[in-house]
Amino acid sequence: MASRKTSILEASARVIARRGVRGLRVEELAAEAGVSTALIYYHFKDRTGILRQTLEFINDRAERYTTEREPGAEPLGPREELEQTLLLELQDTVEVRENSTAWGELRASAVFDETLREDLARATLVWVQEVADLLGQVQPMSSAVALAGAAERLTALLEGLSTRWLSGCLPLAHARALMSEAVAAEVAHLAR
Amino acid sequence: MASRKTSILEASARVIARRGVRGLRVEELAAEAGVSTALIYYHFKDRTGILRQTLEFINDRAERYTTEREPGAEPLGPREELEQTLLLELQDTVEVRENSTAWGELRASAVFDETLREDLARATLVWVQEVADLLGQVQPMSSAVALAGAAERLTALLEGLSTRWLSGCLPLAHARALMSEAVAAEVAHLAR
Repeated sequence: MASRKTSILEASARVIARRGVRGLRVEELAAEAGVSTALIYYHFKDRTGILRQTLEFINDRAERYTTEREPGAEPLGPREELEQTLLLELQDTVEVRENSTAWGELRASAVFDETLREDLARATLVWVQEVADLLGQVQPMSSAVALAGAAERLTALLEGLSTRWLSGCLPLAHARALMSEAVAAEVAHLAR
Repeated sequence: MASRKTSILEASARVIARRGVRGLRVEELAAEAGVSTALIYYHFKDRTGILRQTLEFINDRAERYTTEREPGAEPLGPREELEQTLLLELQDTVEVRENSTAWGELRASAVFDETLREDLARATLVWVQEVADLLGQVQPMSSAVALAGAAERLTALLEGLSTRWLSGCLPLAHARALMSEAVAAEVAHLAR
């Protein structure tokens, strides 16, 4: 029952975004998803299994909403594609807010709890590589090392801006303007 | 008894860095500081008072370790001063680790709890202004808006890199190299 499993993962992302990872109890998740705790243990084995698959779930979802384009829309140039992909992580929609909150919270909790560190490192690597590929289309003469460095900075900056936005410290429009400007600075920096 | 109060704040930063804000109980703080809970309530009124003053305490401490220079050391040029100030937040010492962990955790918890948001916003503004002033010494022809934007990006990037470092996702030397490169990119971007 793939759809039952998905709805548990959706509920898990919601609960983490609402109360944090440390607030996630299996009983509460069961109530939120409208299933029994037994079904949750059946699908995910334990709390670590839930967290691990929730991380994967929010990554897949971010992958979707940052790469989906309007049907019939003009294809974007590489520079716009890059900027768009990053800016789509800074949107005031329920899904993006929830996803960014859960991602930030899983990252923050890894400072205190080693369980998810490897999964987070792997997911970060995949994300950095995607952004490096986009940067490489904008600046094809750049070395792989320079592209990876720029991608690491842009994604780490996005995490920093995102946490400031979600904690009410930075208006969304300003966060987006700062992100666009960072893309301009990094693209120019690669050209040198 | 200023020194007793300071030692409670030191203990509070330690506890937050070890177990997170959400793990901070007044009883545990009292045990860590070797004082009574009554003395803690006397100095800080309530849990919010503790958190608020701990935030101020870690800011003052960061201010000290990022601006202190070896006695008798050659004064740094503005560009080196800027880079040094930012890189001193990425050091593998007990104090910096503890400070960065506590700062990141107070920031992350503000996503879920509004109590500290204003204090965090104010502390961020002060920090951004300090970095903008240093940038202004490097690029005196830049507008205040451009300097503030670059400073917001550099400080948000520092927070992003710091969380990746503290969660075991990014080696410290690499975080420092990325930070130095970001300074180069932003300084060049201001020059254009």
